[in-house]
Amino acid sequence: MNIIRPTVLLDEFKCKENIRKMQTRCMDMQLSFRPHFKTHQSQDVGYWFKELGVSKIAVSSLSMAHYFSAQWDDILVAFPANILEIDLINDLAGRIRLSLLVESMDTLEFLADKLLFPIHLFIKIDAGYHRTGIRFDHFNLIDKLLEKIKNSGNLNFTGFLTHSGDTYRCSGKHEVDHVHQANKKRFIEVKKRYLPHYPDLILSYGDTPSASISDDFEHIDELRPGNFVCYDVTQVHIGSCGFNQIAVVLACPVVSIHKDRGEIIVYGGAIHLSRDFLNWRDKGNIFGLIAAKTTKGWGPPIENAYVSSISQEHGKIKMEESELIKYKVGDILYIYPVHSCLLISSMRSLMTLKGEKLNMYEGLS
Amino acid sequence: MNIIRPTVLLDEFKCKENIRKMQTRCMDMQLSFRPHFKTHQSQDVGYWFKELGVSKIAVSSLSMAHYFSAQWDDILVAFPANILEIDLINDLAGRIRLSLLVESMDTLEFLADKLLFPIHLFIKIDAGYHRTGIRFDHFNLIDKLLEKIKNSGNLNFTGFLTHSGDTYRCSGKHEVDHVHQANKKRFIEVKKRYLPHYPDLILSYGDTPSASISDDFEHIDELRPGNFVCYDVTQVHIGSCGFNQIAVVLACPVVSIHKDRGEIIVYGGAIHLSRDFLNWRDKGNIFGLIAAKTTKGWGPPIENAYVSSISQEHGKIKMEESELIKYKVGDILYIYPVHSCLLISSMRSLMTLKGEKLNMYEGLS
Repeated sequence: MNIIRPTVLLDEFKCKENIRKMQTRCMDMQLSFRPHFKTHQSQDVGYWFKELGVSKIAVSSLSMAHYFSAQWDDILVAFPANILEIDLINDLAGRIRLSLLVESMDTLEFLADKLLFPIHLFIKIDAGYHRTGIRFDHFNLIDKLLEKIKNSGNLNFTGFLTHSGDTYRCSGKHEVDHVHQANKKRFIEVKKRYLPHYPDLILSYGDTPSASISDDFEHIDELRPGNFVCYDVTQVHIGSCGFNQIAVVLACPVVSIHKDRGEIIVYGGAIHLSRDFLNWRDKGNIFGLIAAKTTKGWGPPIENAYVSSISQEHGKIKMEESELIKYKVGDILYIYPVHSCLLISSMRSLMTLKGEKLNMYEGLS
Repeated sequence: MNIIRPTVLLDEFKCKENIRKMQTRCMDMQLSFRPHFKTHQSQDVGYWFKELGVSKIAVSSLSMAHYFSAQWDDILVAFPANILEIDLINDLAGRIRLSLLVESMDTLEFLADKLLFPIHLFIKIDAGYHRTGIRFDHFNLIDKLLEKIKNSGNLNFTGFLTHSGDTYRCSGKHEVDHVHQANKKRFIEVKKRYLPHYPDLILSYGDTPSASISDDFEHIDELRPGNFVCYDVTQVHIGSCGFNQIAVVLACPVVSIHKDRGEIIVYGGAIHLSRDFLNWRDKGNIFGLIAAKTTKGWGPPIENAYVSSISQEHGKIKMEESELIKYKVGDILYIYPVHSCLLISSMRSLMTLKGEKLNMYEGLS
């Protein structure tokens, strides 16, 4: 491997282990598995899921659905339908089983009017996170949407979907379970009410923290975590994984060493890592931790070493002198990301430890 | 203009005005102007500088120098030289006047050994920001570097360079001036000491806040601001510009409206705006402000309207009901970015108000 610029390295073995483990969890709990591909954004990684028998996915935009439609024929866009992309919706709906999210009558009416092919709809429910979705007990609006769907030839109601994004603010199994149980309880209220009229309806659920940690998914039908495929320091902080499960690092050239300040400057900053940060133990806000290099990839984090600040292309690393003296200008240093989804999305590239570049989503212009 | 996905709009008139104003300031103060192109990252915008007679630029990576070398023959990479890219350094040095930054003997020795063509060197000085650079009074190390440069055929000493990035933490002319004067005072100490031996040496300086606000650049020779070309909400907060000078917005499709919560959800999130935020007046941390749409582009910000949170693809907008009712699903909403450099770098695209897509840097793989 000849790394000369900031490069995202993917440990294929760890990644496949993460996939296998999550799939096993879903099978054990009799949950249907619809992994979210917004984290890895790669057809090559997608293929590793396919090899294990996974047959349906979620993505975060219609452009991303377009990219993965070369490989998958059952795709959910887990984002409120963007009616301005109706041409792309029709293109996809004519070729694959396309599922969209709705939470308003305006969107439904537009789709009912403009669709040329059948699509499948989830109604987005707000079960406590308050980002998007209809309040779980706003039955009046849900009734109206269901009525509209029933009367439109190309609209097929599949079920309800929620995202418990508030588990991201938790730390430890107890907190995650608490948020998960509260949200799940509200979410299954909806199922109880509508199941008699729609016996086939399903509940789609699943952020990475609860999918990794919690054991009770009674009444839930489908799980769609995404981040678990690579994990990151945030997920370690939450308790979803250990460092040995983080499957990506940002490999960065060392461009300067300031022994007097206990600092290393790397080529690798906000445009690579993103500006996501985390309040990490006694270190304050950090933008990444430093992984020890091994002959096969990387090992545990180096103690007391972290990315203390970043600007557009610079990363500033704090490190104890005993570790710092091991580095010289021109070396490559590995950073565990705070948020792997944003790292990969910023970089739009992944390289395996064998030096293979993976096929990546690059957006539609 | 047919916008259907998050799109960065550039107001060509405002942008050209920003360029003209900064160039006039430099001329008035008898400063050489070397604009930093890391903000706009576009050959087309670069051409607007060329039309005004600008002849040299700064960029933040060797890859970006490669992109702009199609158009410019005097380029400074204002980032500690990454010796791992020696092949690209040699390629550029053979074609253009290439200037690099050094702050360590290791880098110098490597360059002296491997360069095939002459390059120009600035020694990076830390005048108070403490990100990179040699402490302004660390004369012992500076002496050694100068000695090494003198004895190497392909190394030519040009002068000293610093970045007063700490002006970004200021608010108002008084604070900016205070930081600027303190840093400048330390910086010109270096000039005073070395000018007798290097009568042609120059001092290169200039972050956007001080370049926009301060009037005293005595003893400084070259100014290299970057952000001023587009400005952003951070610069309004600092006092570098008014809202009428912000030359870019992120145009985002409205995908959901929650009247009960006073919220609009747009397609436009962290992968578009970046996660940079700002503590804005009584609103707490914001990720952008909302610009009023006009027939010609955009006007002032809508009062009490702001991006309150973002996730990967979602932006959540808080807005008063009287404004909120003007929007419907499928509309386009304009967001003033907190940080235009990261917005443009994330999006890798710019569209003028006439709907023209500009040529953009896309990175080297």
